[in-house]
Amino acid sequence: MISEKMKTLVANSSVTRAMFEEGKKLAAKYGAENVFDFSLGNPNVAAPAEVKEAIINILQKKDPVEIHGYMLNAGYMEVREKIAAHLNKLHETNFSSANILMTVGAAGGLNVILKVLLNPDDEVIAFAPYFGEYNNYVSNFNGKIVAVSPDTDSFQLNLEEFKQKITSKTKAVIINNPNNPTGVVYSEDTIKNLSEILENKQKELGTSIYLIADEPYRELAYDGITVPYLTKYYKNTIVGYSYSKSLSLPGERIGYLVMPNELDDFENITAAASVANRILGFVNAPSLMQLAVADCVDAKTDVSYYNRNRELLYSSLIEYGFKCIKPQGAFYLFVKSPVADEKIFCEAAKQFNILFVPGSAFACPGYVRIAYCVSYETIKNSLPKFKELAQKYFK
Amino acid sequence: MISEKMKTLVANSSVTRAMFEEGKKLAAKYGAENVFDFSLGNPNVAAPAEVKEAIINILQKKDPVEIHGYMLNAGYMEVREKIAAHLNKLHETNFSSANILMTVGAAGGLNVILKVLLNPDDEVIAFAPYFGEYNNYVSNFNGKIVAVSPDTDSFQLNLEEFKQKITSKTKAVIINNPNNPTGVVYSEDTIKNLSEILENKQKELGTSIYLIADEPYRELAYDGITVPYLTKYYKNTIVGYSYSKSLSLPGERIGYLVMPNELDDFENITAAASVANRILGFVNAPSLMQLAVADCVDAKTDVSYYNRNRELLYSSLIEYGFKCIKPQGAFYLFVKSPVADEKIFCEAAKQFNILFVPGSAFACPGYVRIAYCVSYETIKNSLPKFKELAQKYFK
Repeated sequence: MISEKMKTLVANSSVTRAMFEEGKKLAAKYGAENVFDFSLGNPNVAAPAEVKEAIINILQKKDPVEIHGYMLNAGYMEVREKIAAHLNKLHETNFSSANILMTVGAAGGLNVILKVLLNPDDEVIAFAPYFGEYNNYVSNFNGKIVAVSPDTDSFQLNLEEFKQKITSKTKAVIINNPNNPTGVVYSEDTIKNLSEILENKQKELGTSIYLIADEPYRELAYDGITVPYLTKYYKNTIVGYSYSKSLSLPGERIGYLVMPNELDDFENITAAASVANRILGFVNAPSLMQLAVADCVDAKTDVSYYNRNRELLYSSLIEYGFKCIKPQGAFYLFVKSPVADEKIFCEAAKQFNILFVPGSAFACPGYVRIAYCVSYETIKNSLPKFKELAQKYFK
Repeated sequence: MISEKMKTLVANSSVTRAMFEEGKKLAAKYGAENVFDFSLGNPNVAAPAEVKEAIINILQKKDPVEIHGYMLNAGYMEVREKIAAHLNKLHETNFSSANILMTVGAAGGLNVILKVLLNPDDEVIAFAPYFGEYNNYVSNFNGKIVAVSPDTDSFQLNLEEFKQKITSKTKAVIINNPNNPTGVVYSEDTIKNLSEILENKQKELGTSIYLIADEPYRELAYDGITVPYLTKYYKNTIVGYSYSKSLSLPGERIGYLVMPNELDDFENITAAASVANRILGFVNAPSLMQLAVADCVDAKTDVSYYNRNRELLYSSLIEYGFKCIKPQGAFYLFVKSPVADEKIFCEAAKQFNILFVPGSAFACPGYVRIAYCVSYETIKNSLPKFKELAQKYFK
């Protein structure tokens, strides 16, 4: 009795669910400490202490009607002002509350902006490897996702192919920086080249092409690398942000969209985004959590925790013979499968109680994603197993 | 540059926005205490003290990784168990966690279940007057809303017309009990008759027709009246619930769907609902608030507060000559406009700084909705103005 569209979606989701079930089954059989689950991007780092303090402080001091009530669909005005000011300080931008819409995480924000922009059959370009949910988000509004194939040398953007794939139907381009699943940070050169191509294509086609920057991993950058802020490079940029990783609040569903004044059709886009937030059923981002994150704009997650994991896991896997680019952001390694069909590699890893996700879930078969947002202990304890796994392939 | 669908939605939404702006303008001009804004269903009653205690207690005692992390898309298992047990106690049902999916408010829940059920052009029947957002929710999935005209004598369900409007394309029927905007509680007789019609039509057409019970106002019932629990009358019932009114948490976006075992295609529907929750961008209901409401299943909002407002406003308006059925639930009065075009009546009320919503927003022109979830003071102070307004029509 479920819809035709949902039948396919449920079938596709059963892989992830099966992996989740598998993890639980293995944990029951061998003990949780002997199962090495690298499949989920669920931070193992606690939210900074400021978050707890902020929530309790708000509850103690403010009127509950104000804390838990409806506000404008775009979010509390003072929250949006604080976030705009914080962005301006960081990026020398010039945002105000009018440029910020509070959302139910980045996933909520992406759905809102795609609802705003997409007519049926409009095209949205994504660069493989990309977060598989983009397919579903675009499909929610009957748009078409157009994948650009990966540059597997650097995992920067394949801009030559990108240029070929822009058509008069291209309404938006999504980039995810730092990238899930590769951990790569797109360089300023890459961003400048991307922006130039978009500018030229807009002129050539006489259309507006919106660049959607999906940035939940912005703060997770290592080696002192800078993640370029895209509104400064291309005026039709909309940023989707989430506190899921930066404040370790994935379950709270809190984030925002940045819609700069310079956007083509700015007034209609911001008005429509408020309406879309409402009618998609979000209504507004969770109210207490809006107030809390606004009080924590300067709080920081412990990047050194992830960095320690990155260094150990990366250097060990390379030592054992695996091939992987060294990521400078997010908390993923994207490892080349030693056999052509990476699903077989995933199955082989399960024999050692190691779980990770096939690259085909990210439109990039032949690779696997290893999420290292787990405890350092888990990584240390997994290494002998990874070594045994490697010995199956590299003599 | 925004989509064609959004253009219409933004235009339609501008009425509500204009009213909101109007309210702010009037408040700036005459002082907030001299403006009587009855347009919004935003409770003026504080959340029960248990909510604050529960949140602080959770933050003090639990691991932040657990409080704020991802859980199953359907929600924390222990939260769903507690809610199922609570429902079983209240309604002598037999639910378990498998029947409960935590949602981003009732609006989130309705979007989830409509995404699960609707193929393009499937029909969803709603009984006028109904919450205008149902139009948008159904349109999100390219379904068609079919309105049954109101029974303006009793504002119970017009079941004769309902019977005629069920077709082989009817996938779902939404009822909202107690009703927004009338405040009417559908009686057990009405529900039994509705259920019988649905049973017969399912047999006749060989289809499954799902009854979606939208129940954010369940606890707001007066005069000791009972609001029937619909899963007990019709097996293809799905309940959408929200804590927005019962715990005064509208901004927190927390509610749930109940999907009983007896549903046709139960396994697929629950699996699809989890997937839909994720891909619509909700991912899961806000995590801390899930834990908090589970600790507050027995907390109660102050119904006597609303009842006092209801008694005063209802008796006064009747005394002044207005016509209105006495509501037994929710916090709305649905008053007959003394002129055929109720929008003119709304404009006339604005001259007295009184704001309420035209019935055409609820597919029932000729009436206006007055939300009395304001302070008792506001009601008391508005009465002389209502009296002056009445004198324009009733000599």
